Amino acid sequence: MAPLKVTFLGPAASFSHQAAVETFGLSSELIPCVSFADAIAAVQNGEADYAIVPFENSTNGSVVQTLDLLVDRGGVYADVEVCSEYYLTVHHCLLARKGLIPLSPRDYSSIVKLYTHPQAWGQCEKFLARNFRGVERQDVSSTSKAGEVVLKTDTEANAAIASRFAGEHHGLEILEENIEDMANNTTRFLVLKNVSLGRTELAFEGVKTSSTQDLPQTVAKTKKTLTSFMIRQDTLGTLADALLIFKESGLNLTSISTRPSQIQAWKYVFLVESETEQNTEVVPAVMERLGKVTENCRHLGTWANQLVST
Amino acid sequence: MAPLKVTFLGPAASFSHQAAVETFGLSSELIPCVSFADAIAAVQNGEADYAIVPFENSTNGSVVQTLDLLVDRGGVYADVEVCSEYYLTVHHCLLARKGLIPLSPRDYSSIVKLYTHPQAWGQCEKFLARNFRGVERQDVSSTSKAGEVVLKTDTEANAAIASRFAGEHHGLEILEENIEDMANNTTRFLVLKNVSLGRTELAFEGVKTSSTQDLPQTVAKTKKTLTSFMIRQDTLGTLADALLIFKESGLNLTSISTRPSQIQAWKYVFLVESETEQNTEVVPAVMERLGKVTENCRHLGTWANQLVST
Repeated sequence: MAPLKVTFLGPAASFSHQAAVETFGLSSELIPCVSFADAIAAVQNGEADYAIVPFENSTNGSVVQTLDLLVDRGGVYADVEVCSEYYLTVHHCLLARKGLIPLSPRDYSSIVKLYTHPQAWGQCEKFLARNFRGVERQDVSSTSKAGEVVLKTDTEANAAIASRFAGEHHGLEILEENIEDMANNTTRFLVLKNVSLGRTELAFEGVKTSSTQDLPQTVAKTKKTLTSFMIRQDTLGTLADALLIFKESGLNLTSISTRPSQIQAWKYVFLVESETEQNTEVVPAVMERLGKVTENCRHLGTWANQLVST
Repeated sequence: MAPLKVTFLGPAASFSHQAAVETFGLSSELIPCVSFADAIAAVQNGEADYAIVPFENSTNGSVVQTLDLLVDRGGVYADVEVCSEYYLTVHHCLLARKGLIPLSPRDYSSIVKLYTHPQAWGQCEKFLARNFRGVERQDVSSTSKAGEVVLKTDTEANAAIASRFAGEHHGLEILEENIEDMANNTTRFLVLKNVSLGRTELAFEGVKTSSTQDLPQTVAKTKKTLTSFMIRQDTLGTLADALLIFKESGLNLTSISTRPSQIQAWKYVFLVESETEQNTEVVPAVMERLGKVTENCRHLGTWANQLVST
């Protein structure tokens, strides 16, 4: 059997790459793409079996580019649906070229420059204040890129802040792990498939429940459903009516995103995620009722909740 | 009487600055701030009478930094409320140093480099393809900054893409106006005031209805109300219950944003905007009912709808 093909937003060793490896395993063919749109288009075109894309972060909220691709205003990803999700806890490490820094006792005093993505500085403030006060900081486009730069720039004593995954990928020494200030910064990824292609009916390798396996965990036994719709603007109260359908059908609303329709200013597309403990056989009936009160609506997938309660 | 003090996100000649001038007039003291947080803090501290901040764009959607400041997780802007809104249509111009380009007939062939904010390239694709194919492009941090760079860089024949407002501010020649592809790219700004300071009870200069005055226009006679709340996680259906209160009270839901609570992963704050044609005396009763089904809730302001129907 040919290996599964899975697309993700590159570069190699990005957090999306890590999520792909942890979800699909190394026996799959993991394909880095230059944009989310390319990753999803490959699934629509049948060039890939799955795409894995970040949907929201526990601190920063929704990934708007992913929302907009799911909204699919042009109808170009008509066969793409969400079939699973994966929670990746974001951990940062301090990485350097092998042999650069004495490990016992650790001594960072020779390091003159640090590299990482702008967001990572803020996530490691306490560690940096304790160990690298006054050391020059250089922004790069991704944490994985920071690892690559440090590997290649051997004319100075430097270090990168990136994931263990990126450190191992680039063959760097992991000087310290879990240097982030906040213990629980997690990104939720969605797994997308093409529902009209028979061959992607194959179950992919068991989705793991989380990248942190050190705590007792139970996976919630609920299902999640994602839908999108636009409402008619000539009738008042339609949004409330549409949302009430979910409640009446036993689907508990968990989040609602409002995105511009890009058809007309101040006309919106709503993305609604809901959860149910019961069976999801109600979903087609919900979509049918939704169709009656909205201008258009779409079922974007139903899948097993993978959120772990610790 | 001392002039009104109004804060906005700088630099000078930014779109926020333009919105401030068009809303409050040049007789007000307009104060550029380095961040949205600084602009709002000045209103909370009584150092400014008003702040004007972008809330959403008709193409790109919500301005997340503004949502997060309104959510006010730390309760540090407890006295700040929305009191008005302003719609600014985004128009781009081609700007150059005075005398650089012959105007009749126009000839851009000497221009070797263009400067603007990354987002503006995409908004003027057709114009650029027609007139500047293959010309070097340099990203800068704001369109206003692009104007400043062009003014100061007289060692090359160059041009900036920025607003007429920025062109006039920097004393540049306006070579062409309205070079954007999309006619109706509009940013909605919110005007914030401190409700506990008596002196800001003063009415500010009449809010204009739009920056485009060339079309017949009517301002909708409705009021908008913005609220935020968190829901209890132990009860199902609470979000739908909370939203139903608006409908039952005659407030038509227009948009809902979901932001991370930053207290606990996957616990959210919801920002709900609603509209009503009737009086807004129902708002206190809505807030009281909302208080009973939510963990906490806040009324973030009620103001006259300034959206113009053309």
